[in-house]
Amino acid sequence: MIQANPHYSELSDTYLFVTIARKVEEFKKVNPDRPLIRMGIGDVVFPLAPSVARAFSEAALAMATPEGFRGYGPEQGYSELREAIARIDYRDKGVDVDPSEIFISDGSKCDVGHIQELFAPEIHVGIPDPVYPVYRDSNIMAGRKDFIHLIPATRQNGMVPLPPSEPLDLVYLCSPNNPTGAVLSRDQLASWVEYALRNKALLLFDAAYAAYIQDSELPRSIFEIPGARDCALEFRSLSKSAGFTGVRCAYTVVPKELRIASQDSTVRVWDLWNRRQSTLFNGVSWPVQAAALAVYSEQGQHETGSQVAAYLENARMLANFFRDRGYEVYGGDNAPYVWVYLGRDSWEAFDLFLNKAAVVVTPGSGFGDQGQGFVRFSAFQTPEKVQQAVDALKDLL
Amino acid sequence: MIQANPHYSELSDTYLFVTIARKVEEFKKVNPDRPLIRMGIGDVVFPLAPSVARAFSEAALAMATPEGFRGYGPEQGYSELREAIARIDYRDKGVDVDPSEIFISDGSKCDVGHIQELFAPEIHVGIPDPVYPVYRDSNIMAGRKDFIHLIPATRQNGMVPLPPSEPLDLVYLCSPNNPTGAVLSRDQLASWVEYALRNKALLLFDAAYAAYIQDSELPRSIFEIPGARDCALEFRSLSKSAGFTGVRCAYTVVPKELRIASQDSTVRVWDLWNRRQSTLFNGVSWPVQAAALAVYSEQGQHETGSQVAAYLENARMLANFFRDRGYEVYGGDNAPYVWVYLGRDSWEAFDLFLNKAAVVVTPGSGFGDQGQGFVRFSAFQTPEKVQQAVDALKDLL
Repeated sequence: MIQANPHYSELSDTYLFVTIARKVEEFKKVNPDRPLIRMGIGDVVFPLAPSVARAFSEAALAMATPEGFRGYGPEQGYSELREAIARIDYRDKGVDVDPSEIFISDGSKCDVGHIQELFAPEIHVGIPDPVYPVYRDSNIMAGRKDFIHLIPATRQNGMVPLPPSEPLDLVYLCSPNNPTGAVLSRDQLASWVEYALRNKALLLFDAAYAAYIQDSELPRSIFEIPGARDCALEFRSLSKSAGFTGVRCAYTVVPKELRIASQDSTVRVWDLWNRRQSTLFNGVSWPVQAAALAVYSEQGQHETGSQVAAYLENARMLANFFRDRGYEVYGGDNAPYVWVYLGRDSWEAFDLFLNKAAVVVTPGSGFGDQGQGFVRFSAFQTPEKVQQAVDALKDLL
Repeated sequence: MIQANPHYSELSDTYLFVTIARKVEEFKKVNPDRPLIRMGIGDVVFPLAPSVARAFSEAALAMATPEGFRGYGPEQGYSELREAIARIDYRDKGVDVDPSEIFISDGSKCDVGHIQELFAPEIHVGIPDPVYPVYRDSNIMAGRKDFIHLIPATRQNGMVPLPPSEPLDLVYLCSPNNPTGAVLSRDQLASWVEYALRNKALLLFDAAYAAYIQDSELPRSIFEIPGARDCALEFRSLSKSAGFTGVRCAYTVVPKELRIASQDSTVRVWDLWNRRQSTLFNGVSWPVQAAALAVYSEQGQHETGSQVAAYLENARMLANFFRDRGYEVYGGDNAPYVWVYLGRDSWEAFDLFLNKAAVVVTPGSGFGDQGQGFVRFSAFQTPEKVQQAVDALKDLL
């Protein structure tokens, strides 16, 4: 008799954003004419950069010609795209990453969710609280519920998770952080690398929002820290840096020399991930990769950079609005999220903002117990809508 | 100390097609000017249908406009695509599938690889031999190596895996089969459904090549068999039916009423897969879904249908060539693969065909022990190349 994976029943009932979507649907039924201001799910709103859409479209059309048609691509991604990433996201910024260390995928959500498959079942996993729910849920599904150690990011430590005294095996870090917007400083990140090397732990560095870091003192890549190539992977995404949430392209960097224990020997993480991806993945759509390649052209960098700047301006507007009213605010610069301490139940605040101001946020408690009392504002909106949100919230706060 | 998943070391060294690619690279180094005839990996060669590429391209270009831009889509896929699939692939053919039962994905390889995550670790898994390697590898990676029961498809049973006497929990079926090209008859498939209902087993029906079935007596969908909605999932792909190997779109059908045991109760498989996909997947690129939607237009069906017909004609040419020479041949009609019994070591035949005729095939033994003595020819080539292959092989056989 077939039996279900028993660990699915250990998950909370529904994925956070599905719950939000349901509440929004209910609001729209009762208020069909009220325009909503969506600042909940972190989804971009600006259209795709013109040069990127053009490259995407041309590659798609060329698929109907013998010269332009491409079938199965390399599971790891086309080399021209991997070379452009290695050059522009890393080497030009003084970080040494080889194109062969880059694996193109259809999204960081997939990569950060699947990566835990490479490790033994009974490893001790450190996950910041609050945090993007996929780290926790993917480990619960794999049966590691009792092996998860939450690393509190609190108002006391500036919402920055710091290395614990206990030795963990696998630690997820997200900087700039989703949901808090907090960015690990160079020293803080170095303390994590030191922790990992000392404990033979592996760090999973989720840098999906790296493009939002404007302060040159803050590290965009964990590989800026000496020693990181021996203890860390890095995840990057074009979703928020180039408006690719509906296009789907991301990548994971796995240093070639990174080795972990395997029974009585060691094994390269690169080999494990390559085996995983070539067995369970068939690569990213070629026209999508052509679009991603265009992001790395001079024009693409300029166009997508302007979008990032505009979202950052939104974030500053929101952060200033709350700061001016005396609220404690995290993120809002170097990050597209604004994390506001309201000192009241997060879902209660969510309901209030939705029902009284038609503003959709994400309740902080949805990201973990330490998020209780907070809400997250996403800056992925038009400046006009952010202004409207600020105006609508003025009367409530 | 972080430990690797111990089960990766139980996998055979490299994925079959990676080994083939390496041997082909070596051949090309020695014979840089010799044109290869690739009939190994089942990758399509005809350019994308014009109407499909046009829709793909237009959706990509529209992403640069406020009206045409789309961010995150539904994880399950856009409803217009799911409705088109339900109508054209199922209802028009007399099979009742609701659009809500269809999950759009970026490939059947991902879906058939990930589906085992929904089930308990210690279930007994039936996998035909020979078979597409992903079924076996994904279960080995998940620690089920000692729970895999091979179901032999042999010359004695016409290469058709039949229900065993032992009760298994999960059974992978592939029809038309990759690699053998064998198609399960209605009676044979009904015997599997009867087996599954009797043993409370779940059938995973991989119908990636359903479009190649021309004989109306042969079932294209397992849901043509009464009772299947209580014991089966179905996987379909646009890779081979519409030339989407480089575009990436597939779907999985999960009947709403399908329930399996979960601790002391039961759970809907639809709920498990929905939770899995909404947690670990972010949906398929919107322009890719627009392209898939165009496949289901009248023109798209006509254009892609012509491509399928041409590949089938190739398959017939190949099958006849070997039959005329007295070889035992499976597949070749109702399937894009031709499975030839050569009665000599499969890799030896592979090397002979590559080195003497510059023809790349897939060695049967790469699909399992029962494939020893066979090679697989893929019909995904131009008719000219198939003719060249036949001419080049004439002297060898």
